[in-house]
This record gives sequence, C-alpha cells and structure tokens, in this order.
Amino acid sequence: MQDQSLSTRHLLGVKDLTIEDIELILRTADQFKEVLNRPIKKVPSLRDITIANMFFENSTRTKLSFELAEKRLSADIINFSSSGSSVSKGETLLDTVQNILAMKVDMIVLRHASVGAAAFIASRVKAQVINAGDGTHEHPTQALLDAYSIREATGRVKNCKVAIVGDILHSRVALSNILCLKKLGAQIKVCGPPTLIPKYISQLGVEVDYNLRNCLEWCDVANVLRIQTERMELQYFPSAREYHRFFGIDSELINSLKSKIVIMHPGPINRGVELSSEVADGSHSIILDQVENGVAVRMAILYLLANQTAV
Amino acid sequence: MQDQSLSTRHLLGVKDLTIEDIELILRTADQFKEVLNRPIKKVPSLRDITIANMFFENSTRTKLSFELAEKRLSADIINFSSSGSSVSKGETLLDTVQNILAMKVDMIVLRHASVGAAAFIASRVKAQVINAGDGTHEHPTQALLDAYSIREATGRVKNCKVAIVGDILHSRVALSNILCLKKLGAQIKVCGPPTLIPKYISQLGVEVDYNLRNCLEWCDVANVLRIQTERMELQYFPSAREYHRFFGIDSELINSLKSKIVIMHPGPINRGVELSSEVADGSHSIILDQVENGVAVRMAILYLLANQTAV
Amino acid sequence: MQDQSLSTRHLLGVKDLTIEDIELILRTADQFKEVLNRPIKKVPSLRDITIANMFFENSTRTKLSFELAEKRLSADIINFSSSGSSVSKGETLLDTVQNILAMKVDMIVLRHASVGAAAFIASRVKAQVINAGDGTHEHPTQALLDAYSIREATGRVKNCKVAIVGDILHSRVALSNILCLKKLGAQIKVCGPPTLIPKYISQLGVEVDYNLRNCLEWCDVANVLRIQTERMELQYFPSAREYHRFFGIDSELINSLKSKIVIMHPGPINRGVELSSEVADGSHSIILDQVENGVAVRMAILYLLANQTAV
Repeated sequence: MQDQSLSTRHLLGVKDLTIEDIELILRTADQFKEVLNRPIKKVPSLRDITIANMFFENSTRTKLSFELAEKRLSADIINFSSSGSSVSKGETLLDTVQNILAMKVDMIVLRHASVGAAAFIASRVKAQVINAGDGTHEHPTQALLDAYSIREATGRVKNCKVAIVGDILHSRVALSNILCLKKLGAQIKVCGPPTLIPKYISQLGVEVDYNLRNCLEWCDVANVLRIQTERMELQYFPSAREYHRFFGIDSELINSLKSKIVIMHPGPINRGVELSSEVADGSHSIILDQVENGVAVRMAILYLLANQTAV
Repeated sequence: MQDQSLSTRHLLGVKDLTIEDIELILRTADQFKEVLNRPIKKVPSLRDITIANMFFENSTRTKLSFELAEKRLSADIINFSSSGSSVSKGETLLDTVQNILAMKVDMIVLRHASVGAAAFIASRVKAQVINAGDGTHEHPTQALLDAYSIREATGRVKNCKVAIVGDILHSRVALSNILCLKKLGAQIKVCGPPTLIPKYISQLGVEVDYNLRNCLEWCDVANVLRIQTERMELQYFPSAREYHRFFGIDSELINSLKSKIVIMHPGPINRGVELSSEVADGSHSIILDQVENGVAVRMAILYLLANQTAV
Repeated sequence: MQDQSLSTRHLLGVKDLTIEDIELILRTADQFKEVLNRPIKKVPSLRDITIANMFFENSTRTKLSFELAEKRLSADIINFSSSGSSVSKGETLLDTVQNILAMKVDMIVLRHASVGAAAFIASRVKAQVINAGDGTHEHPTQALLDAYSIREATGRVKNCKVAIVGDILHSRVALSNILCLKKLGAQIKVCGPPTLIPKYISQLGVEVDYNLRNCLEWCDVANVLRIQTERMELQYFPSAREYHRFFGIDSELINSLKSKIVIMHPGPINRGVELSSEVADGSHSIILDQVENGVAVRMAILYLLANQTAV
C-alpha cells in the first residue's frame, strides 16, 4: 500500500513519533477503513507474521480491537493473559516475553500496569513491540485513533480546539492525546477537578480550565475521560454524584452551548458520571466511530511496522 | 444449500419460530451432519462473517459447540467472556455489545444470566443475535438439538411421548423443549418434585406426573434435566440422595419398564443424582449423540441466519 | 515426510516409547525446525485435524508451544481450561472429555494434576491423547525436547553425561528425562537435597550425588529443575536462600569448573534460586533454544500421531 515507512521499529509512545509518522499512519488507516466497509474485510498482508497479544491488565475493547485488526490482516495470533499463566509461578516479565519470542513470534502487543514496560521489553528483544497501555504513562494507539476520529468528524486536526475533560492525572489516554494532538497542531485545554490535574501539565503546552462550561464553549471537540476508580488509591473527589454535577456533561449543558461540539470518550463509559446517557448516545457523540476507527488505525500500525525495512 | 429462509432475523427463543422454521433448521442440520462425518469437515459458507461469542455465564459445551460450528463454517470468531473484561469496570451490557459491534461484527452469540438479555440486545443493534441461554428463560439451540436427536433416535417427533424429568422450575432447557416439541406435535409430561414444577405449567399444554415410574412407563423418550444447584437459592429437596431415590433413574428402574425408552440429558450430568452411571453410559442413552448433533444444528442456525435476505 | 510410524497411538509417557520411536520423533523435529526458520512457517499437514487443548492446570509455555505447533501445522484448535467451565459444575473429567470428543475432535492434548489422567482418558476414548503433564508423573514432550536440545548442543545423547539438579521428587520433568535419556544411552546423575531425592531413584539406573560441585565437574550437561513451591505441601528445605547456597548455580561456580558445561532449565526460572541471572542468560545456557525446539518437537509428535495408520 505505502512505499514510505515509519521512523521507528516499535510503537512505544506518541512521543517517539514524528509528524510524518503520524500522518502516514492516519493515511494508511483511511485505506484500511475502506477495506473494513467491503463485504470481504480480510487482506492477506500479514499472512506470514505471528503476533502475541500479551495483556497483563484487564481489557475488552483494546484487546478485541487488536485481535480483529490482526485477523483482518491474516496474521497468526497467540493470546496471553496473566491469569492462568506462569506469572503466578513468579516468572519475570522479561522471561515470559523471551519464552514466547523463542517460539518464533514476530510482534508483541503489550499491556502492562508498569510505566515503561513496553520500552523495557523493546530494548531487550528482537521482536517489534506495540504499547497497548503502560500504567499511567502512554496509550499511543488510542491517541492515534482519537486523532483520526477528530479529523474525520471535523475535517482537520490542525487548529482544532480540543478539551480533554476529567482525570488527567491517572490517564495514559490524556498524555498520549496531548502529545499527538500538539504534534498535529491542535489547541488543547484540560479540564477537571484540581486534584486530578497534574502540576506539570502547562509544560506540555496545554491550558488548564477548571470551569467545564467555559471550556466547552471554547472547544470544537471534548474528549471526556473515564473516571478510573480502579486506579485511584485515594479519594480525589467526594462522590460520583458530585463529580457529575461539576464535570459531567448532560443534555441540558450541551444544548445550552452556542455552537455544536463533538463528544468523544475512550470507554468504558460510567453512564451518569462523565456523560449522561442522552449525551453518550446522542448526535454529538462519535464514541462508536472511535471504536470502529480503532480497528482501522491498529491495522495501519501493524501493517506499517511489519512491512518496514529494518531501520 | 437451501433456498428457503427463516421467518426471523434473530434466534431469541423457540416461541418466535414457526413450524416451518423449525423444520427448515432440522433439514439443514441433516446436511451439516453429513459434512461433519466427512474427512474434511469444513465448508467455506461463512467465510465473510465475523461472529462474537459473548458468554457472561460459565459454559463448556454450549460455548465449544458454537465455536466449532463457526469454525466448520469458516467464520471469523472473537470470544468474549465476562472475567478479565470491562464488565468488571462497570460497563453496561448494551455498551459492551455496541462496542464489539462497532468493530464490524455481523453476529452475536449471547449467554447471559438475565431473562430477556438476548431480546433486549436484538432490539437495539443491527447485528443478528442468537440466544445461547438467558437466565431461566430460553435456550433455543438446546431445544432444537434435542428435537433433532429425538427424531433421529425414534424416527419422528410428531406424537412422540416425551417425559421431561427434574427441575422444571429453573430450567431454560425445559421451557424451550416444551415449546419446540409442542410445535412439532409431541405429547409431553413433566415429572419432578412438586417444589420444582412451576404452577403455570399446565397452561403450556403439558401434563404433570409426580410419579417417575408411571411417567417412564408412559413415555418413549425421557429428557432428564440437570439439578442446577448453582441456580438454587433455597432448598428445593432434602438431599441429592433423596432426590436420586425418587427422581433419579438407575438400571434397575429402567430395565423393569415394559418397553425400551430413550434417555437424554443436556449435561453436565450429576452422576448418581439424576442418572446412575450405568444408565448414562448404557444403551438407552443418546447423550453423546445430542452433543454431536448440537454442532450440526448450530451450523444450520448460523448458516440460515447469515444467508437470509433481510426480512 | 516420513514413511515410518510410531509404535503407539498415544503419547502418554516416555516409558511407552521405543528407541526407534524417540529417534523418529527427533529426526522429524529436525525437518520441522527447518520449516520454522523459513519466512513462511506454516505447512498444511494437519488441515483436516481438530485438536482440543485441555489444560486443567496453569501453564504458559507448554500450552502456547502446543498451540503454535498446531497452528504451524494448520490444525483446527479448541482451547479448554478448567476455569469458567463445567468443571465448576461438578462434571467428571471423563464426561468433559467425552463431550468435547462428541463434537468430532481428533486429538487431545491433556494437562491434569492427577497422575495417570492421560492414560485413563486414552483407555476410554477413540481420540489420540498426548500427555502434556500428569501430576508428578510424566511430561514426555518436555523430555523429548530436552533430548533434542542436548543432541543439538553437544552433538550426541549417547554416552553424554547429564546431571539433573534440584527437586527430583516432585518433578515429572525429571522422571521423563531419566527414562528418555537412558533409552538413548546417556549417563545420568541426580543431585539435590536428600529430602527431594526419591528413595527408589537408583532403581532407574541413575546415580545420586549430593554435592553440586562434584556433579557439575562430572557432567557435560546440567538440566536444572524448577523449585516448584506450588507442589510442595511441606518444607523440604529451610529457605530459597539456603537452597541457592547449596544447589543454585552462579557464575563463580560455573566459571571455576574444569570444562565448559551446558545449562538447561525447563522454565519458569526462579532467578536467584536455581540459577543466578548471569548463568541463566549467559553463554552456557541453552534455555531459550529449548523453548524454540519445543515447538519443532511438538510439531513432530502431532504430525507423526496424526498421520500414522491405525496400530
């Protein structure tokens, strides 16, 4: 499909990608999105490639999205999850990965609770590594599918005004989104309770706005993050109800805005907390387009990494 | 294979099927059973179809039976089970399903603990839905494979005398069997402890007989249900031993009957409770034929649903 | 590939294999190892075969190794693990297996905690059974891949001096290794704490040496076993640290030996207990070659069993 190739052997984080890399991925995803809308959705591109999906944390949509992207590309797949495995016998992550690679696996998709897990593995193995989420650090494929979806919904990313709303502190989606959208020339504000906005955030070139209404009046697109109670050891806000009152979006709020905005959410949604059901399912929402685009974007990434000449 | 098609887009319950639908499924299953007995058991019929198997309750045989049916038809498959997934992050069933469908899935096989789960999903999504068991309500593919197995073992379903023995109250197999066999013209008695026979049952056109020996003397086929201790919140009978004494079938009992009957069981068997091992493994039993027929019947259902023109 | 066939329909243990069987497996594995090093690693040999991988115990490497071997041979695969299955509904092992076989499965790969589980199943079903570990008894595919790896690393097995170090008492790897290497003409010493050496061991034709240094000076190859704390109900040694002091191998020890030896380990490694990291990752170690060879050896076994004429 493409003659060009990525500047990197692995996809560890958006921070390593050039603008050209990102644009190549989005352009290639356009072609795969068209494939996914054909009656026959499968191409033989990765027929000779074996991919191990290694998920050391719970996941539904990211895992299934990668799995479907791999199947559409005709790759051979082995799935590994940490339950029912030698991890419970005390094996190190590197030993687990090395063992799977010794079975002649070409590529690893890795989700792990530890920041830097994917980069650590990539520095020690020959296979190509795709980071499917490393702790609170990066989730690059989510950022790329979000950028793709913004471009699809609004016609452009450059100069687009994007509000990222919610738990910025614990979110790998927030960090990867900021890095990706900045590279593509978007303007970004983050919005959330002060306890969930990290101190360093302005150094990333984003503005902070603690007032949701102001922020939504300003933006073209609001990417509303999940309240990840499973990552929070402390109380960061009094209750889900109070969170919804100040940082949740319902139809009354969204209909009172001067211009129509686009609502995104990486899922899974806490309905009635971040978004009311009317908003999640309404005409502003492109949440299910994000999911659909996720498969096309992941196909593009797998395809480009597998087909590049050694760099 | 067939030019005819089903009168329904989904398979939610036997109650929605016409007699013609059931007969079409059984006839189509005949053809697939023949395929399964060839050296090469695979046909390319569903090569362009992606099916998601979504099991929110434990299952071995139903899940593997669907999976094998799908593989024999060359479908692409993604498997979802509720453990290790976003269900533990509090996502709604509909959101989970919508997300999977946004990845361009054509068909869903759904098992869920809630009555009506499959119908609820079918009313809200574009994909075709097959009910693989919804709480204590229906399990239509089990009823269809049971009807197929009765016809295979006795030559007919019409006017066949079928006893359904055991826990009628909690069993989705019992309800789907009654609906299916009645449509096909069988005569039905149910037999079990009074605590496990629902009050409304005679309204379904079946007789109740609390005496197992009488019931077995009457019938051609006994479909013996599983005591599902996992669905029982209360004590419905004093002990497994007492249950066996009054409603279990052993070789002494079965050999004392005037004519030879056929023994069926949907599995998994509690040996020594519903059936003694001699009966489960003996010449009356067609339990393993039921399992074999399950793959053929499920192939027929998948094939007919996938190939119908929009209705 | 081969005109010859194995003398057995099942692979239950090394004890049932003739020398000719073992040599046929190793020769066939040579050919598959060459296939695995081609760009296209897949052959159509088992296209018409359906294999059920039934793992009733945790496993990473053995399960994935079988799965990849089956995929490289183009077999259809169904995976069964005991969690989320009808085992939790109290079904017997034989009923679970019979049900899966009724779905037209040709071969079973079985791991189970009970000694003799694979032989029990093989005696009662028509399908071919491969023992992937039965309690503390045998693990024949591990022994065959170890023999293959020894031959590859040292040029021969006959007259090779092999030390098996560690927990001989609980290890199915130890027993299968001893049986296999003896048949091929190797000399064997076992070494470990007296509490972990079974009393009968000399009857197998092996010597016991409680002194690790002496044993390593003697041997060409040391196969270092895992301390399986999950199988130990009692304390067999005071602490992991004390174990390492007397029976662990570190670089100081290995570099002080008169001649260079080969280090093997079936994995997963307890780093710092059986082996120091320097030794596990160093030039003596062929641990990852064992993993790679495991896929080739399992392909050979699956291929030979599937293609034999009835015996």
